[in-house]
Amino acid sequence: MKSNKSKSRRNFIQQSALAGAGMALISPIPVFGSSNNSNNLKMNNNIKSKGYAAFDESGTLKPWEFERRPVGNNDILIEIKYASICHSDIHQMKGDWGPQQYPQIPGHEIAGIVSAVGKNVTKFKVGDKAGVGCMVNSCMECKSCKHGEEHFCEKGETVFTYGYPEASSPTGISQGGYSTNIVVHEHFAVHIPGHISFQEAAPLLCAGITTYSPLMNANFKVGDKVGIAGIGGLGHMAVKLAVSKGAEVYAFTTSPDKVEDIKSWGAKKAIVVDKEFKNLQPYNKKLDYMISTIPYQYEVAPYVACVKPYGHFTYVGMPNGFELTFNNLSLASSRVNFNSSLIGGIPETQEVVHYCADNGIKPEIQIIKATEINTAWKKVVKKEARYRYVIDVATF
Amino acid sequence: MKSNKSKSRRNFIQQSALAGAGMALISPIPVFGSSNNSNNLKMNNNIKSKGYAAFDESGTLKPWEFERRPVGNNDILIEIKYASICHSDIHQMKGDWGPQQYPQIPGHEIAGIVSAVGKNVTKFKVGDKAGVGCMVNSCMECKSCKHGEEHFCEKGETVFTYGYPEASSPTGISQGGYSTNIVVHEHFAVHIPGHISFQEAAPLLCAGITTYSPLMNANFKVGDKVGIAGIGGLGHMAVKLAVSKGAEVYAFTTSPDKVEDIKSWGAKKAIVVDKEFKNLQPYNKKLDYMISTIPYQYEVAPYVACVKPYGHFTYVGMPNGFELTFNNLSLASSRVNFNSSLIGGIPETQEVVHYCADNGIKPEIQIIKATEINTAWKKVVKKEARYRYVIDVATF
Repeated sequence: MKSNKSKSRRNFIQQSALAGAGMALISPIPVFGSSNNSNNLKMNNNIKSKGYAAFDESGTLKPWEFERRPVGNNDILIEIKYASICHSDIHQMKGDWGPQQYPQIPGHEIAGIVSAVGKNVTKFKVGDKAGVGCMVNSCMECKSCKHGEEHFCEKGETVFTYGYPEASSPTGISQGGYSTNIVVHEHFAVHIPGHISFQEAAPLLCAGITTYSPLMNANFKVGDKVGIAGIGGLGHMAVKLAVSKGAEVYAFTTSPDKVEDIKSWGAKKAIVVDKEFKNLQPYNKKLDYMISTIPYQYEVAPYVACVKPYGHFTYVGMPNGFELTFNNLSLASSRVNFNSSLIGGIPETQEVVHYCADNGIKPEIQIIKATEINTAWKKVVKKEARYRYVIDVATF
Repeated sequence: MKSNKSKSRRNFIQQSALAGAGMALISPIPVFGSSNNSNNLKMNNNIKSKGYAAFDESGTLKPWEFERRPVGNNDILIEIKYASICHSDIHQMKGDWGPQQYPQIPGHEIAGIVSAVGKNVTKFKVGDKAGVGCMVNSCMECKSCKHGEEHFCEKGETVFTYGYPEASSPTGISQGGYSTNIVVHEHFAVHIPGHISFQEAAPLLCAGITTYSPLMNANFKVGDKVGIAGIGGLGHMAVKLAVSKGAEVYAFTTSPDKVEDIKSWGAKKAIVVDKEFKNLQPYNKKLDYMISTIPYQYEVAPYVACVKPYGHFTYVGMPNGFELTFNNLSLASSRVNFNSSLIGGIPETQEVVHYCADNGIKPEIQIIKATEINTAWKKVVKKEARYRYVIDVATF
């Protein structure tokens, strides 16, 4: 599988990145930031950055100044304009998915302007609008990487956008988008077309692709009944995308005050889920397909039972410890195929951005300042977000 | 959904059964057994039976004499010749799937001769060879029941062959096949053709149908790579059935001494699974479909990873408490559709019996006497069965 080539390429990237070699500064935008930090005098070409980081599992973020790697031959530097808040940010910073290295900057819904490009970069030029989602590197040589599924790199070399070991990063791990800039291999950035704003594009990089990918894979027909459980950041995009693709959408929420919103997005029905799941019973075996975006462990059987026998159900949320428990007899009785989906590959991420821009599909957003991040996190956990908080990076 | 009709029909069956009305005794075979039990003098038309029952959760069976309901208008009485041992018998008697009522006679792989028929019976005549599998009643009116999925009766009225509440049964629950006879609604019995023996037909009634049904549902093509995990009573039938249907079969077992057997049945490969699952790695993403018959909770992720992305994996075994736990991130990474399958409907049960008879597909069996049942159960648990113990009911 071309492992030698792969290894040498990777070594090269790492070495060149660490040495700051090959960086083509053709940007009028200040690459090194405007920090007064005296560390600036250190002899390296690292990129100064600042943002909001977690320092422990408390779930509270604080301002932090740090460095990113120099722009390598295949890298671009993006001056971040907006970054939005995903429940996954909170899960990971709190250690729900395993122990973390701190300080760590969350954020994997990132939109900004390209301010520098490496000498081998062909996909972007300085001044382009660009977005970064949930990953920033992979082997790019294996079958999965070559076929647009870099998130399932067969060599296990996918580097997710924050908290993943990354030799090229001065902090040793990838650092996310709640920050002023990001250095990323050009392959892992997507174009943001002119007819969608930065703030409306940012949520597409995770909430958009994570729902778009399984919806497209489900291959439902126009008029098919599609259920969507959990109407938050991801779920509200799922409703809009499924409606746009011609589905008859049944949205299941525990928040009665979301019903009017959901209907306004074109859903056929908005069902308020009660504790005994009585309101789900009329939908038993009625849906052609269902996707759940609920980001914690819950009683999944009553939802699965809404899908027609031999249909498919996709579980998108990742519960604590990634552990999922269900009653196998219920699953057998439902005759439903259960699957899980994790974000989407780079080509499909580009596709959803284009699709949303071209079809006027926009996330429901609330712009916040950096100082409002911690409050926003609390609201996300309490299901009070309507529906995506987007951080204005100019306020860092 | 014809609920009135259904209710009155059910009431009628129960009343007529309880009163012993409508029983057409046209059999030369003694219907009331030959017990000397003085209870015989009791004024009812119940059918005397004897067999081996569990009296507690110890997993040890003892002889027991009991009564079955009289033969109702739609019932047949089967003189059981052979009944085979399924791991489910052991699970249920030990209380692994919930508390049980005792005494309880296990056994849902039953083959014998029809010795009496109710007056409305059209499917069987006295002297026919007949089999009973995992269920003995359902509403027979709902969409599932009418379309050959009586095990998924939408009214929840499926009566499984033993341990299920059944008003018509003198013991209050259904009693299984480790016994001299059984009374069953004709719909829930299948014909056993002349060209397969009782003892080779019995295991088809659960091990056969439980693997045949998901294999057929998987809709694999000739030459497709089909994995089968767990080569016991069910798994060995799955190998033979999948080979017969043209699959290239990869069998996964933890018992090295089964390898030669597996190859003799036509499997392409027999893989001995090691504790670190290293022997599974060469099959990563290689199989078109996989079925697991392992009857307990185990680490399922390495098996699921053997299926190609977007393929299907069926979990047939029912673990303790029916509870299944897995890593959702592994499932997402595999991109595999996970489903569970429970036995099969009556038409498909008839189909597998015909298919096996017509194509010479026979289970590997060992005939045992009643006194050997407890030893056989221990061997089943210790994975020492090769591959199905069949009880000669003449030894009760």
